[in-house]
Amino acid sequence: MRDVSIIGIGQTPVGEHWAKSIRHLAYDALSSALRDAKVDYADALYVGNMLSGEISGQSHLGALVADFAGLRGIEAVKVEAACASGAAAFRQAYIGVASGLQDIVIAVGVEKMTDDVGSKLTAGLAGAADADYEVVHGVSFVALNALLMQRYMYEYKVKREDFAPFAINAHQNGAHNPNAMFQKAITYQEFMKAGVIADPVSLLDASPMADGAAAVILCPTERVREFTDKAIHVKASAVATDSVSIHDRHDPMWLQAADISAHKAYRQANIGLRDVDFFELHDAFTIMAALSLEACGFAERGKGTWLARDGEITPTGKIPITTRGGLKARGHPVGATGLYQIVEAVQQLRGEAEANQIPNARIGMTQNIGGSGATIITHIFSNQL
Amino acid sequence: MRDVSIIGIGQTPVGEHWAKSIRHLAYDALSSALRDAKVDYADALYVGNMLSGEISGQSHLGALVADFAGLRGIEAVKVEAACASGAAAFRQAYIGVASGLQDIVIAVGVEKMTDDVGSKLTAGLAGAADADYEVVHGVSFVALNALLMQRYMYEYKVKREDFAPFAINAHQNGAHNPNAMFQKAITYQEFMKAGVIADPVSLLDASPMADGAAAVILCPTERVREFTDKAIHVKASAVATDSVSIHDRHDPMWLQAADISAHKAYRQANIGLRDVDFFELHDAFTIMAALSLEACGFAERGKGTWLARDGEITPTGKIPITTRGGLKARGHPVGATGLYQIVEAVQQLRGEAEANQIPNARIGMTQNIGGSGATIITHIFSNQL
Repeated sequence: MRDVSIIGIGQTPVGEHWAKSIRHLAYDALSSALRDAKVDYADALYVGNMLSGEISGQSHLGALVADFAGLRGIEAVKVEAACASGAAAFRQAYIGVASGLQDIVIAVGVEKMTDDVGSKLTAGLAGAADADYEVVHGVSFVALNALLMQRYMYEYKVKREDFAPFAINAHQNGAHNPNAMFQKAITYQEFMKAGVIADPVSLLDASPMADGAAAVILCPTERVREFTDKAIHVKASAVATDSVSIHDRHDPMWLQAADISAHKAYRQANIGLRDVDFFELHDAFTIMAALSLEACGFAERGKGTWLARDGEITPTGKIPITTRGGLKARGHPVGATGLYQIVEAVQQLRGEAEANQIPNARIGMTQNIGGSGATIITHIFSNQL
Repeated sequence: MRDVSIIGIGQTPVGEHWAKSIRHLAYDALSSALRDAKVDYADALYVGNMLSGEISGQSHLGALVADFAGLRGIEAVKVEAACASGAAAFRQAYIGVASGLQDIVIAVGVEKMTDDVGSKLTAGLAGAADADYEVVHGVSFVALNALLMQRYMYEYKVKREDFAPFAINAHQNGAHNPNAMFQKAITYQEFMKAGVIADPVSLLDASPMADGAAAVILCPTERVREFTDKAIHVKASAVATDSVSIHDRHDPMWLQAADISAHKAYRQANIGLRDVDFFELHDAFTIMAALSLEACGFAERGKGTWLARDGEITPTGKIPITTRGGLKARGHPVGATGLYQIVEAVQQLRGEAEANQIPNARIGMTQNIGGSGATIITHIFSNQL
């Protein structure tokens, strides 16, 4: 098994790209990553995407994107794990390089959601949950997260306002990210006045639907010097799953798959919690940010919001999260999100995060969550070998 | 990189499974493969599927199937490459084992199509083609194959009836396969009288939409003796892509991706054409059988139907194809088909193909095609190390 590194990154701004098709968005991110890596070929392409069939009537994205990118002929495939599709594509690219079968590999995540923000999209996103045992009751994906948040507030005696710091931090960081969908800070008052979508989830607890694509180029660590002097190394890659239905979990208040994949990742990277300089977590909803911090060990059970209240999740805190805006402010083009997180981690570790730069960042962690916690993929990166 | 072998196989009958959900079908095949391999765990699960989002409103099949199979927690993901999704899932499972990261790996292909054989399914299948440049003109996936067949007949001066031997051979073989959807031989007269769907493609040129699932268990070759004395070894695994749009190919009459992936596979396996004892090809339409035989080198350009006319594709011919009925008679649950082909190849190489057994079969080849030729995945298997 070979060590694997990242030699190039690319992304499109997140937003409403009505003038670009899904292949075009993927191409923009991918070609920018190839330029960044200074390579013009690849052995394989992994496309992370969830909804292209449902929204764009287009399956078969592997071949479609490869051809449009001028790479006709290469091995290409789509990988899907609901909202964790981006990190899942990265994971397969990582395995491809680690295996020795593929040398230069592209992982691109792409989603085009805003062509239909009505019933098709709501139904498509509900496919991340259990169609037979959850969605059949008429519950949307937002409503499932609202149920989790309700239960959390009841169980741990916290209030709606206790989740505000997650949204405020994300928007504060997003304000300095030129690729973020919302480049605007928000206040506590604005958070409290935000319209409720599914009680208690408000617009400012929820990440926005969006279009976007992000890409990275991977190669064996032993070859990075041919391409760049700023390679970022993959120190850990771990996936775990759980029941798709929330009601079927041993403990709905515990992201078992985050616990398993994060702790597996710490062991692989041979690091402890304190070594993590920043954490790009999956704040699709503020409740998921709290649950992720707890399952990964950064906060005690039920105390994720305390960490946020104490300012420890900001760029100067103990564990900075969503440093470039997170899903909340950067936006959440579902199948692309996992790769945006990785691109942003690489920016931090290269020292290219501009106003969002975490000083002396050496080790960064990303975590992409599919559904309400059924697929959780954790990666750890470092700028040191 | 480690050598990889297959230690277990499982499948459901192909047909209309209205009483079973998609997770149940996948479970039936997967659990039967685990029993066959005599293992009750796995490190990872790869699910090949094309249409679960569109037809069943269910994405996220990796976690869903893992949990339903009693494997909650393991790494699991869905892989999609249109009609080649089954072999694409196998390919990722193969890479996982080859890499050394995963030891016991399940690849399962599953599709549930017959819940909606109307507009949803027609639109979903069209997603294998190019939504923006082909489907936008109102052409269905069958119509695209009809255009290919029209052009082939014009170009090479062959007639509709010249394709009959492909369907007759498939149905003759399917008659002895207890898992085939159509266990009934057909005559030349029946072929000629079959209703035309999209001129010149008739019902007996086209494979049927169906529900089904097939699965295999892979492990490193060095470990097979722990599990079985009838392991089948993966001698080659190769993927190539092409333009998704037919009009954009250099030569619409040549499956470039079949040519590339097959010849790469021959080199990997270090064999010549004559060493292949049987070939499970992708006869979604009879025209695809002819084009596949030509691109892989078994027939000269334009002479695929001649090989069929001369009886060389039957079990006693030079290159037996679709030995258990192929897509035409076994049925074509799209995302499962690639794994049915591999399961059938394993049956042949184990000597378990019953009335369809190819005597002394040592080397078998499978080829799964996505779209009208945009993703082509070729595997070669042997019962000898």
